[in-house]
Amino acid sequence: MDNPFLVDVTRGPLVESRHRGSVSVVDADGSTVLSIGDVDRRVFPRSAVKALQALPLLERGIADKYGLTDEEIALACASHSGEPDHVRVAASMLAKAGRDAGCLECGTHWPMGEAANRALAAEGGTPNALHNNCSGKHAGFICLACGTGEDPKGYVGVSHPVQRMVRESLEDITGACHTMERSGIDGCSIPTYAIPLPSLAFGFAKFGAGAHLRAETKAAAERIRKAVAAHPFMVAGTGRFDTRLMDILKERAFVKVGAEGVYCASFPELGYGVALKADDGNARAAEAMMGALVLRFLPLNDQERSAVEALARPVFKNWNGLEVGRIQLSPLLLG
Amino acid sequence: MDNPFLVDVTRGPLVESRHRGSVSVVDADGSTVLSIGDVDRRVFPRSAVKALQALPLLERGIADKYGLTDEEIALACASHSGEPDHVRVAASMLAKAGRDAGCLECGTHWPMGEAANRALAAEGGTPNALHNNCSGKHAGFICLACGTGEDPKGYVGVSHPVQRMVRESLEDITGACHTMERSGIDGCSIPTYAIPLPSLAFGFAKFGAGAHLRAETKAAAERIRKAVAAHPFMVAGTGRFDTRLMDILKERAFVKVGAEGVYCASFPELGYGVALKADDGNARAAEAMMGALVLRFLPLNDQERSAVEALARPVFKNWNGLEVGRIQLSPLLLG
Repeated sequence: MDNPFLVDVTRGPLVESRHRGSVSVVDADGSTVLSIGDVDRRVFPRSAVKALQALPLLERGIADKYGLTDEEIALACASHSGEPDHVRVAASMLAKAGRDAGCLECGTHWPMGEAANRALAAEGGTPNALHNNCSGKHAGFICLACGTGEDPKGYVGVSHPVQRMVRESLEDITGACHTMERSGIDGCSIPTYAIPLPSLAFGFAKFGAGAHLRAETKAAAERIRKAVAAHPFMVAGTGRFDTRLMDILKERAFVKVGAEGVYCASFPELGYGVALKADDGNARAAEAMMGALVLRFLPLNDQERSAVEALARPVFKNWNGLEVGRIQLSPLLLG
Repeated sequence: MDNPFLVDVTRGPLVESRHRGSVSVVDADGSTVLSIGDVDRRVFPRSAVKALQALPLLERGIADKYGLTDEEIALACASHSGEPDHVRVAASMLAKAGRDAGCLECGTHWPMGEAANRALAAEGGTPNALHNNCSGKHAGFICLACGTGEDPKGYVGVSHPVQRMVRESLEDITGACHTMERSGIDGCSIPTYAIPLPSLAFGFAKFGAGAHLRAETKAAAERIRKAVAAHPFMVAGTGRFDTRLMDILKERAFVKVGAEGVYCASFPELGYGVALKADDGNARAAEAMMGALVLRFLPLNDQERSAVEALARPVFKNWNGLEVGRIQLSPLLLG
């Protein structure tokens, strides 16, 4: 099955590049709301499931045990830009578990945020693992290990208790088997498991609506959503799509990007979960697709609509600020 | 017509993302050597035609008039990384025409090369138009204007004599009409004209083989090819595909990337020209496609083959250096 064209990028009067993809929107009872393209093909959710990977930290009372703040809980779900506040909060999480950056096993890269990258270079600094966009998630993993009496060493490994707890949570909420035969290694070295988009969407529908969840999972999901809605900067960073969208919509939309064109969302007031992938892995396409679905499903006032339109249909300008192209959204997305 | 899958990106045992595209390989007589996908669809060549855009500078004797060096001629064809040597050579070109960076109309951006970007930030600098990846091309345009007695002011405009000369050269060598109705504005503010891939490939076949060209164009093409082969660093930069490939193959392959997944090449010993586009505009796909075509068409010794394989089929590693995925090339490309 060929996935349809969903996002076109124009230049002048012509379409310059085209993105295909697949989309699944499911409600908290598991009924299909929208299905586009081949949704049976398994997709690595990558960082789009960080909020689900953070569930055990709260379900097991570890966030309370260490007195994690809302900022810290939000950062545990983040693919952050490595800005100073992200680094500070990741270090604070580790300190609460009596650990430091030396325990992080995510690897090191320069800050994903361009300004943060240059600021670090300008002060003569070099990056450490706290600047890794996954450092908040990993700090959460280390808290989870320490809080449950496990040695955090090797926590990224598939057989470490942390990754076993994380996999159980993912299987539980999505209803999909997470098998080694369909696993890969993520950018930050933890396992990632390929599952179908409707399972991912179903997980995020339950995550948003709080339905069909055990009491501790429901409470954990609600706390994560509220923490992220209160601190959307923490999950991404300056100018980023997730931060900008949740700045506009607060608790009405939980959205999270993943690498290779994956996006997941919960629209709690509708009880919908969303999972999508751009075939080619392109982030601009995945963002436009997610923006289109927000425009389609969520009731918005004029101001909100205009702000979301700017995210869903960005105008591309060149180095002199001249408009050179636009994003065109398929009617399949907009309904 | 649906373009076929040409490049797959794997993660663990699965395909994570897929790229479709189209390819045209044409010989200097205009005969089709290879055609994949919908090659009738018009494509903006973007920066992939910078070498053709530089032809008037040499055809009209301006490069000689100003004593441009091979490094400078190579930079006139560049999408460079903004490294100090690129900036130095662009400034030198302008000085030879009695001008300076204030005349550049390409706009300003931070160096495309990550190390150059951070080095500039570390020294407390800010970028100017010389750091723009197109500054060499624009310095060439300014030389062309000054050398032909034109005021360079407004040289990016479609009706300026510089852009008229450039368009004539493009039409002449590709044989395709370059119309305003099918034009857009490029990242550096000059016009870009959408034409079919076989026309682009034909232009690069003639550019490489020197066939069916007027004497001054043949000489200009040869000088550009030799200049770039002698200074492949100038057309791209540290670690970049074009620089690495031409470091390996020298004059045996002229290759040039364009934005949005376009690539053009000449294989002079075969008389072939190549033009390709990844549908989605992704550079990793376009690079892999070009690498595959080099492997397919050019006779390579073991050392060359192994070096080109590393470019065509890169192994993706994560922040801890673990292999997480690979590029798979379609048999349609490899033959």
